[in-house]
Amino acid sequence: MAIILSDSDLDCGTTMQIAIEAIEEAMAARSAGALVSPPRHSVSFGCKGDLVFTVGGTIGEDPIAGFRVYGTFKGLRREQIVAVWSTETAELQGLVIGSRLGDIRTGAIGAIAIRHMSSPDARTAGVIGSGQQARTQLEAAALVRRLDRVRVYSRHEQNRRTFSAEMEQRLGIPVEPVASPRRAVSEADIVICATTSRTPVMEAAWLKPGVHINTVGPKTVDEHELGLDVAAAAHLIATDSLEQTQAYKAPFFLSESSDAARMVDLAAIVGGRLPARQARDQTTLFCSVGLAGTEVLASKLLAATGGKAPAG
Amino acid sequence: MAIILSDSDLDCGTTMQIAIEAIEEAMAARSAGALVSPPRHSVSFGCKGDLVFTVGGTIGEDPIAGFRVYGTFKGLRREQIVAVWSTETAELQGLVIGSRLGDIRTGAIGAIAIRHMSSPDARTAGVIGSGQQARTQLEAAALVRRLDRVRVYSRHEQNRRTFSAEMEQRLGIPVEPVASPRRAVSEADIVICATTSRTPVMEAAWLKPGVHINTVGPKTVDEHELGLDVAAAAHLIATDSLEQTQAYKAPFFLSESSDAARMVDLAAIVGGRLPARQARDQTTLFCSVGLAGTEVLASKLLAATGGKAPAG
Repeated sequence: MAIILSDSDLDCGTTMQIAIEAIEEAMAARSAGALVSPPRHSVSFGCKGDLVFTVGGTIGEDPIAGFRVYGTFKGLRREQIVAVWSTETAELQGLVIGSRLGDIRTGAIGAIAIRHMSSPDARTAGVIGSGQQARTQLEAAALVRRLDRVRVYSRHEQNRRTFSAEMEQRLGIPVEPVASPRRAVSEADIVICATTSRTPVMEAAWLKPGVHINTVGPKTVDEHELGLDVAAAAHLIATDSLEQTQAYKAPFFLSESSDAARMVDLAAIVGGRLPARQARDQTTLFCSVGLAGTEVLASKLLAATGGKAPAG
Repeated sequence: MAIILSDSDLDCGTTMQIAIEAIEEAMAARSAGALVSPPRHSVSFGCKGDLVFTVGGTIGEDPIAGFRVYGTFKGLRREQIVAVWSTETAELQGLVIGSRLGDIRTGAIGAIAIRHMSSPDARTAGVIGSGQQARTQLEAAALVRRLDRVRVYSRHEQNRRTFSAEMEQRLGIPVEPVASPRRAVSEADIVICATTSRTPVMEAAWLKPGVHINTVGPKTVDEHELGLDVAAAAHLIATDSLEQTQAYKAPFFLSESSDAARMVDLAAIVGGRLPARQARDQTTLFCSVGLAGTEVLASKLLAATGGKAPAG
């Protein structure tokens, strides 16, 4: 029987580390043309909602196939299933059932962007947002850069206090709740924007030269947490899936700007086919959209290690 | 966390009984237009094979959504996954992982055909084939008719002996291995044909008046385990999915015969919209093709009962 992991198995600190290495692998495969990630497929169940399938895997050495599925039905429990088979042996290698893997995967994608785009000596992070995605993005960032200070802003004081206390304990570094978004980002080497805001939450003028920004929240032309000024200020703009930026129901937030044309694929940077930052004071921006196939690779590695970090 | 069942949970005698009631429910829903069963969806992983998704569920009261997925990769272990959500609460209700549910579901579909099409006083069964499908078809048949004798034929003597010993023990009635297909079917009220034969294994002339036949094996115009003579002799021909008979890559075995046009949907018989047999001596034929959505309903009921029969 295949290894089955649930949310409680993904709660240990090493899960994110494993996911980050899986995403690095996925990006390398994508750069080499070995990542399978066809368009999404969804089936409607009348007015109740849809089942949405994201299928993906790798070809080449140690090839795998799998999928993620989730329902859009109304309810509190939003359990997803990710499954992965070896296409070499036909064996079902693992299943991950629950709601945590999606956030962990997105956190790990953010970490790969930070690893390959931010300044290697980045030490301070500014976070806008205090939800689950803000937590996993920051946790992942701390695994790829030696952060020594974090500032967080979100609209509700209690939320940013809770976030700070929790993350300070988790990361072992000072996490300070601040009363304005400007104060959160103005001294940051890395900015994580993970809100549900439909309007820009910061201005390019507030940012330090050399900053790297991850945007995880809304990114359509009508609703976006970052303004066009931030994109215009960036020397390098990347995304995990150029196809996905063009496949949203609403147009991508940069689609009416000249900056859309210079957006590049993160996998090309990871694979060394495109240069990352050229100078210390360059601004870099990563637009996270959710590359298909990444959950499958993450699940494979998590199942192989039983959710624990590999020895040595 | 959802209930997860594997092959060993499906090994008890009550599993088939639960599956049969699930299929009865599926047929009633289909007859009422409340079964969701869109076309299959498959994604290719290069030369290694495909992942094939059959999505389905019900609308109306206590609505559910789910899917079955299997890989066509080369290997010994062919584990499928079936998952079911309540579309009312968004809760993932259950998962069945393994290779047994497919056969059990097909056995249960066969039992529903026998329940609604065969003579109520059918007592003897003739089986051609001694594989897993032959076992589950016979086990299911014995749950809907009071069988008192079974004869089985398959090409290899050892296989039919093993089948007989095993099924005699399992069903508690005499199961006799016989040396010719004619001897297996000539006195049978119910004939189960579950082979991999590409050419007809019996002749219509061998069959008793009033017989009901289930054909589970090959059914394309070039490869079929039953000849056109059997279909021509049948007063009533039904299938579980008329759509599927038209969706095979190769044409259905009756497609060049005038009998194709009189084939009816089993759900219409179950739902009382079409009459079943009109007289004791009529011959009836059921062509099993695998109705989408049936695995999802079976999994729902199995998960709800934990694989054990409901009390009372």
